[in-house]
Amino acid sequence: MRTGVWLVGARGSVATTSIVGGLALRAGLAGPTGCVTELPELRGPALPAFADLVYGGHDVVTTPLCKRAEALAAAGVLPGRLVAALPDELAAVEEELRPAPTGATQAVRAVAATRDLIGFRDRHQLDRVVVVNVSATEPPAHPHPGHADPTALRAALTGPQEVLPASSLYAYAALEAGCAYVDFTPSTGARLPALHTLAVERGLPYAGHDGKTGETLVKSVLAPMFAMRHLRVRSWSGLNLLGGGDGANLVDPGANAAKVESKQRVLGETLGYVPQGETRIDFVEELGDFKTAWDLITFSGFLDTRMRMEFTWHGCDSALAAPLVLDLARLTAAAHAAGEVGPLTELGFFFKDPLGSPSHSLAEQWGRLVNFTRGLHAGHGGSDEHAG
Amino acid sequence: MRTGVWLVGARGSVATTSIVGGLALRAGLAGPTGCVTELPELRGPALPAFADLVYGGHDVVTTPLCKRAEALAAAGVLPGRLVAALPDELAAVEEELRPAPTGATQAVRAVAATRDLIGFRDRHQLDRVVVVNVSATEPPAHPHPGHADPTALRAALTGPQEVLPASSLYAYAALEAGCAYVDFTPSTGARLPALHTLAVERGLPYAGHDGKTGETLVKSVLAPMFAMRHLRVRSWSGLNLLGGGDGANLVDPGANAAKVESKQRVLGETLGYVPQGETRIDFVEELGDFKTAWDLITFSGFLDTRMRMEFTWHGCDSALAAPLVLDLARLTAAAHAAGEVGPLTELGFFFKDPLGSPSHSLAEQWGRLVNFTRGLHAGHGGSDEHAG
Amino acid sequence: MRTGVWLVGARGSVATTSIVGGLALRAGLAGPTGCVTELPELRGPALPAFADLVYGGHDVVTTPLCKRAEALAAAGVLPGRLVAALPDELAAVEEELRPAPTGATQAVRAVAATRDLIGFRDRHQLDRVVVVNVSATEPPAHPHPGHADPTALRAALTGPQEVLPASSLYAYAALEAGCAYVDFTPSTGARLPALHTLAVERGLPYAGHDGKTGETLVKSVLAPMFAMRHLRVRSWSGLNLLGGGDGANLVDPGANAAKVESKQRVLGETLGYVPQGETRIDFVEELGDFKTAWDLITFSGFLDTRMRMEFTWHGCDSALAAPLVLDLARLTAAAHAAGEVGPLTELGFFFKDPLGSPSHSLAEQWGRLVNFTRGLHAGHGGSDEHAG
Amino acid sequence: MRTGVWLVGARGSVATTSIVGGLALRAGLAGPTGCVTELPELRGPALPAFADLVYGGHDVVTTPLCKRAEALAAAGVLPGRLVAALPDELAAVEEELRPAPTGATQAVRAVAATRDLIGFRDRHQLDRVVVVNVSATEPPAHPHPGHADPTALRAALTGPQEVLPASSLYAYAALEAGCAYVDFTPSTGARLPALHTLAVERGLPYAGHDGKTGETLVKSVLAPMFAMRHLRVRSWSGLNLLGGGDGANLVDPGANAAKVESKQRVLGETLGYVPQGETRIDFVEELGDFKTAWDLITFSGFLDTRMRMEFTWHGCDSALAAPLVLDLARLTAAAHAAGEVGPLTELGFFFKDPLGSPSHSLAEQWGRLVNFTRGLHAGHGGSDEHAG
Ligand SMILES: NC(=O)c1ccc[n+]([C@@H]2O[C@H](COP(=O)([O-])OP(=O)(O)OC[C@H]3O[C@@H](n4cnc5c(N)ncnc54)[C@H](O)[C@@H]3O)[C@@H](O)[C@H]2O)c1
Ligand SMILES: NC(=O)c1ccc[n+]([C@@H]2O[C@H](COP(=O)([O-])OP(=O)(O)OC[C@H]3O[C@@H](n4cnc5c(N)ncnc54)[C@H](O)[C@@H]3O)[C@@H](O)[C@H]2O)c1
Ligand SMILES: NC(=O)c1ccc[n+]([C@@H]2O[C@H](COP(=O)([O-])OP(=O)(O)OC[C@H]3O[C@@H](n4cnc5c(N)ncnc54)[C@H](O)[C@@H]3O)[C@@H](O)[C@H]2O)c1
Ligand SMILES: NC(=O)c1ccc[n+]([C@@H]2O[C@H](COP(=O)([O-])OP(=O)(O)OC[C@H]3O[C@@H](n4cnc5c(N)ncnc54)[C@H](O)[C@@H]3O)[C@@H](O)[C@H]2O)c1
Ligand code: NA
Ligand code: NA
Repeated sequence: MRTGVWLVGARGSVATTSIVGGLALRAGLAGPTGCVTELPELRGPALPAFADLVYGGHDVVTTPLCKRAEALAAAGVLPGRLVAALPDELAAVEEELRPAPTGATQAVRAVAATRDLIGFRDRHQLDRVVVVNVSATEPPAHPHPGHADPTALRAALTGPQEVLPASSLYAYAALEAGCAYVDFTPSTGARLPALHTLAVERGLPYAGHDGKTGETLVKSVLAPMFAMRHLRVRSWSGLNLLGGGDGANLVDPGANAAKVESKQRVLGETLGYVPQGETRIDFVEELGDFKTAWDLITFSGFLDTRMRMEFTWHGCDSALAAPLVLDLARLTAAAHAAGEVGPLTELGFFFKDPLGSPSHSLAEQWGRLVNFTRGLHAGHGGSDEHAG
Repeated sequence: MRTGVWLVGARGSVATTSIVGGLALRAGLAGPTGCVTELPELRGPALPAFADLVYGGHDVVTTPLCKRAEALAAAGVLPGRLVAALPDELAAVEEELRPAPTGATQAVRAVAATRDLIGFRDRHQLDRVVVVNVSATEPPAHPHPGHADPTALRAALTGPQEVLPASSLYAYAALEAGCAYVDFTPSTGARLPALHTLAVERGLPYAGHDGKTGETLVKSVLAPMFAMRHLRVRSWSGLNLLGGGDGANLVDPGANAAKVESKQRVLGETLGYVPQGETRIDFVEELGDFKTAWDLITFSGFLDTRMRMEFTWHGCDSALAAPLVLDLARLTAAAHAAGEVGPLTELGFFFKDPLGSPSHSLAEQWGRLVNFTRGLHAGHGGSDEHAG
Repeated sequence: MRTGVWLVGARGSVATTSIVGGLALRAGLAGPTGCVTELPELRGPALPAFADLVYGGHDVVTTPLCKRAEALAAAGVLPGRLVAALPDELAAVEEELRPAPTGATQAVRAVAATRDLIGFRDRHQLDRVVVVNVSATEPPAHPHPGHADPTALRAALTGPQEVLPASSLYAYAALEAGCAYVDFTPSTGARLPALHTLAVERGLPYAGHDGKTGETLVKSVLAPMFAMRHLRVRSWSGLNLLGGGDGANLVDPGANAAKVESKQRVLGETLGYVPQGETRIDFVEELGDFKTAWDLITFSGFLDTRMRMEFTWHGCDSALAAPLVLDLARLTAAAHAAGEVGPLTELGFFFKDPLGSPSHSLAEQWGRLVNFTRGLHAGHGGSDEHAG
Repeated sequence: MRTGVWLVGARGSVATTSIVGGLALRAGLAGPTGCVTELPELRGPALPAFADLVYGGHDVVTTPLCKRAEALAAAGVLPGRLVAALPDELAAVEEELRPAPTGATQAVRAVAATRDLIGFRDRHQLDRVVVVNVSATEPPAHPHPGHADPTALRAALTGPQEVLPASSLYAYAALEAGCAYVDFTPSTGARLPALHTLAVERGLPYAGHDGKTGETLVKSVLAPMFAMRHLRVRSWSGLNLLGGGDGANLVDPGANAAKVESKQRVLGETLGYVPQGETRIDFVEELGDFKTAWDLITFSGFLDTRMRMEFTWHGCDSALAAPLVLDLARLTAAAHAAGEVGPLTELGFFFKDPLGSPSHSLAEQWGRLVNFTRGLHAGHGGSDEHAG
């Protein structure tokens, strides 16, 4: 099952770490730590092997991939020895990176993007391609009548207006090319009626939103803990300090708002009420790709006794995100192969703001993921392919 | 379903908080925060109502219960207004507290304890009594041939030797009186072959060990988080600072060792390997009943990138423990009524060192607890009683 | 040396805690913990004794002082037993509280305030009165030509415009009444050329700004530590979470900005460069009068090795501020008596944003304070009075 | 002023970092971050320039210095580029490293060590040599009559017994060779009457003990802060988690005890009373040369309100220690040149357990250091040499 992994934002930190890591895994130079699809509960024949993954992508910048990888190595995100050991493999991926499409109308740009995807699939004789958005977070989208259905959308795109935010235009292009779409960011992506309908018409699955890698990951186990113990969370405040490209982008208030909102959702939905407090994101360039998040939780227990918990998370965002990008590509490819259509709500485990969001509890999301993946493996007739 | 709650260590912090809280709930003066049996997932007809609970117990000290309650109020563990509002109810419980039995041999003391239990049950026309051990933690027990079976045990108890640690002698007396036994401490309790056999012979359930209220509670959601994300925990170190009676007792190295070992187990069993680091407990009198625990976790992710997390837990141990004591009494009474016999492994949710311990993951334990309790409610023929 | 302590914002948390504490000290019901003027290095004959302090003040609200004190006791800021033990003393202070002056022009209001101060001084035959501003923090003042000198100011005040922010109007009234003025807040207070000139003309001292009680206090010892060790602070980020009246007021962006700016100053001036990062203040009602501040400091050492420190400060703002208010009143009264005129730069120890600010290092400020106070004691001819 | 820096434990982490850093500074490849003698307050003509420092030392192991440096670079303690850039310089130092002396009696070994020192001084035509002990921490010394005076000591050393711990034997050898001695460890070193007398007889200065680099450094500013604010510290508990050679050595209970005691002293002596709580050191191999210390401080303020502070220090011990080793060598050499004799109590700034210890407050220690160093510069007649 030869599978393409097409990364939007392919020269960014997350994408570069995913590519170097995927190549290193294929070459046997690194182990699968952080890849959940390599856990015993999830491994199995339905998933494309790391050896079957081929990488390509779009980006608006042109920094060579190996330069980006070296910079990440210097920053401690990646081991430099891996970058040094994979020059040919990285050069081959470089060949498959394309500039973000240009053109007078969004329709023209979408056609160009679709063409890039089809070319990639044909050139490498891929069974299918998964498009994963790991580009910079956008501000929330402006409503537009063209969002309502595919026909209205197609008409609107030919006009001079910016009908879709970039993430949705990539999603549209992916669906038009017959590719599944995963959004690892809080951007709009495929979350518009027109794109949902299109995905269903084309028989394609999509997944998202916003990879759950740090503070929210911890929240998704701590909030259920308080709930299961019938403890009342009175306030939950958080501060996320981060540098890196993603951090710089979040200096933009719109992007910051989108991200913060996505982070807060887990609490209200898990606890059944919204405790006081806010989550903030601040850009501190010097922290680079390592993020420090601090959270203070005050709660009351029996007879209203007041207690508190605080935690500090010091994580490397790209190192946490990259293996999940590979997991999502493998799982979405398998779902596509199995005929799954529309939002993959079973992948909520990976996301801060999961599509359909039946639960934000990591344990429940894990249960659903294990069942879903077991179903994929069970339904997998093929005998020739194996994971990892 | 009139149910007795017999507390061993009845004048201690946990017991006193349980009693005051249970009485306050009955009187409608306090809400059920912290009581998991009042969550929608667990409520139901099989559980004795708070109004059906009657309290009694043993202790080696004679501090009046209301003095102890006032001291806890002054320390911020309990609201003073509750103590002030319940003088008659507390006096009634005081009537049901007995000194720890004395006598030349353990056999004599066991008989006395059994007699206390039967008297309590008869006096109050209770359907059944649950004995809950919340007395001071003991050092690990010394092996003795009498631990092998009930016959050997009975013979040995008549001799001059201390065959059983106190917790096990109370468990023995409970079983002889036809009472279920719950151990909220890390002490030996019913965990001896002779006592297990006796419980089975008498058709009685038992539960334990060591209420999971603080650092270990947090561990039981964080360790699975790392496991589910395939992150490698490299070290996990912890320091627990606590005052109060329990803290003072832990200055004894034997008791401390028992407690520390019970705390460490969750990691190895959840992760499948034991990370570096140790958990320590230090007595700091000035902290009183509020405990501060700090944990540092270092872990590696994709391509071995090193990351870290730390948390501080600042909890009131007695306020966390007391509602669980009430929950355990209600659940164990219902299990007894339903004919459950032997170790109640489905109650692992409550314990650091659960009997049978199929999993230390809080979420899995929760799932088992919900199923078990649903079974109790479903099998509950009775129509006259309702929880809470 | 009978001394009046006139509190602007007299029914607020800081003022109420200062009054209850000052009365309790006088009555021998509490010790001087937190009062730096009772340390051996500072005690001495120049300072008015606690028994010589008489309290009064202005406020815009009318909540009875003892109600406010009871509320603070319920919140854990004050021991309830003190409030219960001092009913007459509190009633006597209540008699000396006045509504914030009203009137058509600021000139009219200033006259009314001056009259309140003179009446207070006369009624109690006070040697002098110190006015301490502990009212809500204001937004930064708007420039006005009347700020330039006393003559321009007097003229402008008679017009319909709000020439002075409230804190400066109180400072003006204080100076007109011959009273020294201390500003415990970040508001403008006496920091206008017109008011400085007036103070000098009248031979009065003034002090400020913004009591240093929490995060900034810690900063004022940690920043010098990094400097003395030649370690390079790369970033310093902080989050202050607070409830209480002061927290609520800081929801106002103007007040918040004034406060945040005052907090940041210490770093740049101590280190000689401004590290990255920001200090934020968030209102979390549920935290009440207890504030939690978290700071992350990243720094580099020898050969640029990167290191980090974080701290959490969990303090009761009013309990930290109140003894300093009493200290400032005593010291400023002694300075007034000693003929000190203009800004008391030697009191920088107490402030986040000290007048004249020669140094933000707590240790250096301490040195200056000790010398200054020694000078006051040395110059103190009187034989009849003693501190504490 | 050509100055030898003779390191006991020359192949350890601190020594290697000192050597690489000192060579890098000389070569202009690194800046003086972390070197306090390069601060404007301390710089000046009395100190030997980095270009004037020549390195040598003793060690019991034979790992090549450059291998050790490479290992430290791999662990993130040193930049690898520096090690790569200084091969010849490191080889030259390697030539000056000697095995720890062997021989049947301590007298024989002392003579051998003295001979090593004299050879080093002669070979490099050094004006003087400072011996700095950075070898593994020893358990506290056993008392012996030979410790009383030089004559008794000389006699005892010729016997078969271990009269002196290793650190003291090195100190003895240093003094016999006419070298000043600095002890950066908590070991006994020159702190014996016999060695003190010998130092005075020979006109030599000595300094120590135990470099103040992490938790204790922070304590030495925070404890004075609480004292200056008249806040009552109720408990101060700490946990130090460290890997590396020093950490491994501290698994030995004797060494651990020596270190812990040295850490506790600062509190009692600064506050005037000993708060509850203990400081612990645990070895966690995986943490390598980076140490994490966590401290919890509980304190009470005005009217006994309870508050708390906690901090986490995440420092690279060797990177913090190495520049201080260079500072101490420079300052001690200048003191020796200036005729200072006996314990250099003015260097308390550098130590956890300073000789003579008039104060543990970092700010006061800084004041004394600045004065002392100014005196050295003032008394420095020479015109030809300049620092740095
Ligand atoms: N790292 C994590 O843990 C994590 C978690 C959740 C979500 N995310 C999201 O993943 C995304 C990537 O994060 P990152 O750290 O790699 O950021 P980054 O800034 O390093 O990379 C983003 C890349 O997207 C490119 N880009 C921007 N606009 C584009 C466009 N219109 N078309 C194509 N490329 C475009 C940029 O040139 C850049 O190379 C962000 O949106 C972030 O919010 C990351
Ligand atoms: N509070 C928690 O969060 C928590 C969690 C897990 C386990 N526990 C365990 O619960 C127990 C009680 O804790 P606590 O804080 O109430 O302690 P405590 O010291 O306040 O109370 C213990 C009581 O047991 C009594 N006692 C001692 N030996 C006895 C004996 N032989 N017979 C009868 N009574 C005896 C003591 O007199 C005392 O009144 C401890 O073993 C503790 O380890 C508590
Ligand atoms: N508590 C601390 O640690 C600390 C430290 C530094 C500065 N401060 C400052 O001290 C001040 C008081 O803090 P608080 O916690 O007591 O706040 P608070 O809100 O409890 O009290 C402020 C009082 O001022 C009164 N007030 C408002 N406007 C007034 C006016 N124009 N005239 C007279 N009274 C007026 C209010 O009615 C209120 O009673 C704030 O400005 C705060 O920023 C406090
Ligand atoms: N790094 C810090 O921040 C710091 C602070 C205060 C004190 N110290 C002390 O500095 C010392 C060195 O620390 P480190 O991290 O470099 O330890 P390390 O274990 O890396 O180095 C110690 C070296 O001493 C050598 N050694 C042991 N016994 C010896 C002997 N008898 N003669 C000669 N050499 C001997 C060892 O072989 C080793 O090479 C320790 O005592 C430590 O407690 C370090
Ligand atoms: Na913390
Ligand atoms: Na922390």
